Amino acid sequence: MAINLQAPKGTRDFYPAEMAVRRYIEDTWRNVSIRHGFVEVDGPTFEFLDLYKIKSGDEIVSQLFHFEGRADKEGQADHFALRPEFTPTLARMVAAKANALPRPIKWFSIPRCYRGEAPQKGRGREFIQYNVDILGGETPEARRQFDIESAALCLAVLKEFGLTEKEIVLKYNDRSLVEKLFVVAGLVPAQFAFGFYLLDRIAKLNPAQRAEQYKQNNIAELQQKFFEKLANGQDPLTDGFWTDLAAQGYDEYRTAIRDAGTQIETTLATMGFGPGWAKYDASIVRGLAYYTGFVFEVADTAGDLRAVAGGGRYDKLVEMFGGPSLPAIGFGMGDMVLQVLLQEKGLLPASLLPKPDVFLVNALEDAAPAQKLLAELRASVFDPATKSITRPGLAAVTSYKTTKNIGKLLQDASASGAKFAVILAPAEFARGVVKVKNMATREEKEVALADVRTALA
Amino acid sequence: MAINLQAPKGTRDFYPAEMAVRRYIEDTWRNVSIRHGFVEVDGPTFEFLDLYKIKSGDEIVSQLFHFEGRADKEGQADHFALRPEFTPTLARMVAAKANALPRPIKWFSIPRCYRGEAPQKGRGREFIQYNVDILGGETPEARRQFDIESAALCLAVLKEFGLTEKEIVLKYNDRSLVEKLFVVAGLVPAQFAFGFYLLDRIAKLNPAQRAEQYKQNNIAELQQKFFEKLANGQDPLTDGFWTDLAAQGYDEYRTAIRDAGTQIETTLATMGFGPGWAKYDASIVRGLAYYTGFVFEVADTAGDLRAVAGGGRYDKLVEMFGGPSLPAIGFGMGDMVLQVLLQEKGLLPASLLPKPDVFLVNALEDAAPAQKLLAELRASVFDPATKSITRPGLAAVTSYKTTKNIGKLLQDASASGAKFAVILAPAEFARGVVKVKNMATREEKEVALADVRTALA
Repeated sequence: MAINLQAPKGTRDFYPAEMAVRRYIEDTWRNVSIRHGFVEVDGPTFEFLDLYKIKSGDEIVSQLFHFEGRADKEGQADHFALRPEFTPTLARMVAAKANALPRPIKWFSIPRCYRGEAPQKGRGREFIQYNVDILGGETPEARRQFDIESAALCLAVLKEFGLTEKEIVLKYNDRSLVEKLFVVAGLVPAQFAFGFYLLDRIAKLNPAQRAEQYKQNNIAELQQKFFEKLANGQDPLTDGFWTDLAAQGYDEYRTAIRDAGTQIETTLATMGFGPGWAKYDASIVRGLAYYTGFVFEVADTAGDLRAVAGGGRYDKLVEMFGGPSLPAIGFGMGDMVLQVLLQEKGLLPASLLPKPDVFLVNALEDAAPAQKLLAELRASVFDPATKSITRPGLAAVTSYKTTKNIGKLLQDASASGAKFAVILAPAEFARGVVKVKNMATREEKEVALADVRTALA
Repeated sequence: MAINLQAPKGTRDFYPAEMAVRRYIEDTWRNVSIRHGFVEVDGPTFEFLDLYKIKSGDEIVSQLFHFEGRADKEGQADHFALRPEFTPTLARMVAAKANALPRPIKWFSIPRCYRGEAPQKGRGREFIQYNVDILGGETPEARRQFDIESAALCLAVLKEFGLTEKEIVLKYNDRSLVEKLFVVAGLVPAQFAFGFYLLDRIAKLNPAQRAEQYKQNNIAELQQKFFEKLANGQDPLTDGFWTDLAAQGYDEYRTAIRDAGTQIETTLATMGFGPGWAKYDASIVRGLAYYTGFVFEVADTAGDLRAVAGGGRYDKLVEMFGGPSLPAIGFGMGDMVLQVLLQEKGLLPASLLPKPDVFLVNALEDAAPAQKLLAELRASVFDPATKSITRPGLAAVTSYKTTKNIGKLLQDASASGAKFAVILAPAEFARGVVKVKNMATREEKEVALADVRTALA
């Protein structure tokens, strides 16, 4: 059998350098989330296939990797699917324990997710998706506060990677305000779903395709003109936009948009995300039908890439999964577009591989003293009373070369990036001491063998 | 549609408390590995189904979750399987880049793995498997050193969780020495594979089943007696074992065992794992046919559980996957048995959820000062020059209650486990200061608003 040494197309091998980047991204997501008071959760990598139909209908199945479990005695087998996203699992988990969970529920997760489609650039068949959700909020004010907290965390995470308002922008909208906009433009409620659908794709459709959409959906001429203006990037907050259109209740719409925008942008500015970090964008509606209010996307300002992150309010979803009525806001951020952006902007440090604390230079013929010292340096002190580590061990490495040449081994110590070199040499060892060299300052001092661990604290 | 709120049987939902345990286990695996000079890698969650047949043959297929990718224009679809273990991916990755990787290759990984079988207690359909491998070693001495390093890391990891030689023991053997034992007992090389097979299962077979095995495999009476003695727990290192058996070259065998054992146990003792941590066990052969030398298992000393960890030397595997001849030693450790053991021994801290650095008590009517202060406390300082965080943000939380009662909010601060409470109260805020309370010492001091972050450093 010829052996295929490649990973399946659309999946990735993480050799040490790639893994270090992944670890950096995941750790940053995790640390910033925890700093903002979120707690981590996760679920199974695969769920019952039916779980994904609840939110997305039967058409989702063709986009999933799905498979059967082992058949039981009656020949019945469960049908599973690899998770394409975390939200259905989140909704299931919340619905199952809704009343036992303290509110607001502030959860994040860093699941690997899967697409059963042909891979495209920046869209793998396996990717890592950071998810953040806040569930709860009795009042519109509390919910709006959570909307802003969610957007602020999204920006805080990206800022932690060194991104600024020069490279990224959070574009927000509110689906309830889009509905107001549709009313202003003269659409009737039965046409709203089509309106959202079209708005979500409008930048990708050419004029002929748009015309076809209007025809199929019986969109009148005046409303076609409205969509065409949006497609051409005109701003419905300018009076000129409406000169030749229906414009019932335009002032009310504009006031609502401006009030919402002022509150969102003022609060974000208070939180350190001033002008340029966030802006209202009438074309942001997010494709998924389950969003009910505030929606946002983070894009690169250059406009070269797919969305870096996206999310919104989904107040009906937990109920849809059999739970109580529980308003919620959440966003997702994939690792692949983010990594491309960080690379393009030169924001990935050259090497993210962990550097050792200590490089042991062993110039003794006997291996045992080096083995003993390495083990002592690496060992943590565990306190059985508190069941915790009271002093963590150090990252200590050595050379596997047979040379005893201290100069050559010190070159390896330097290349390793270690903070300290500890030198076991015959003359010093005979006196019960080692040399400890600070690799940054090049200072050397003698330390008794028994005191090395303490000297490196 | 009735909604099933349960995760598929044999998989797990990780709510915050369960996730914190998983995080603790994974972080400990990761930290101790890095301290020992290992680097992290990972691969795809699914591979081509054929990859798993290389090492395990066609019979593996029934134990896997497998599925097809989307068919191409000719109706051809790739056949994938969820990884049941990491070793085939490791072998593929090493084979693909064997000559570019610095040696020895010291890799660890923490993949989620999958079994397509019916779940049993302690054997989920989805589990997390820590893997450690050292590839390289030109000489028998270097390879033996790596054997011992591998076993020592396995013990160091378990020690980091607070386990000691009272709770666990590493049982080792060497398949090349087992072959010597077979020769002593009068088996011929063609019978060795059966010998390993039988030895691996001997404790689970009853006398009738063993008799059936002997019959099927044409095992002569003298050799049956040999296996029966092993099945009854007799020690082939005692002279009495051999009184009524063939015993060609017994002295040579015993010397080889004792030499190997002395070296292994002496070196482990040097590394901090003295008497009781490791012992020779003639019955440990590890089921998998690809092991070629040193093999080991870590068991709970009470003998109540499945193996906590297991591994061995597999010098032919990389070659089998199309790579160069590259000797290797590795072990795996699943999360499920380990977690049961830590729970049983009372070694899991009561709460592993992260505790905040700061709890902000907001007694102001205006939300903005609290929003601003929280954001400032949480924000890291990123240095664009070095592309790194020069001062990490703090984990800062607050109450979502509407009360402005400082006493009640301080109770919440205390319950949160925060190190500090920062109190925003009207009188102090009017003077531009806040109160900072050290929750452990109960000391309170006033700090200027602009200096809070520094005061908490």
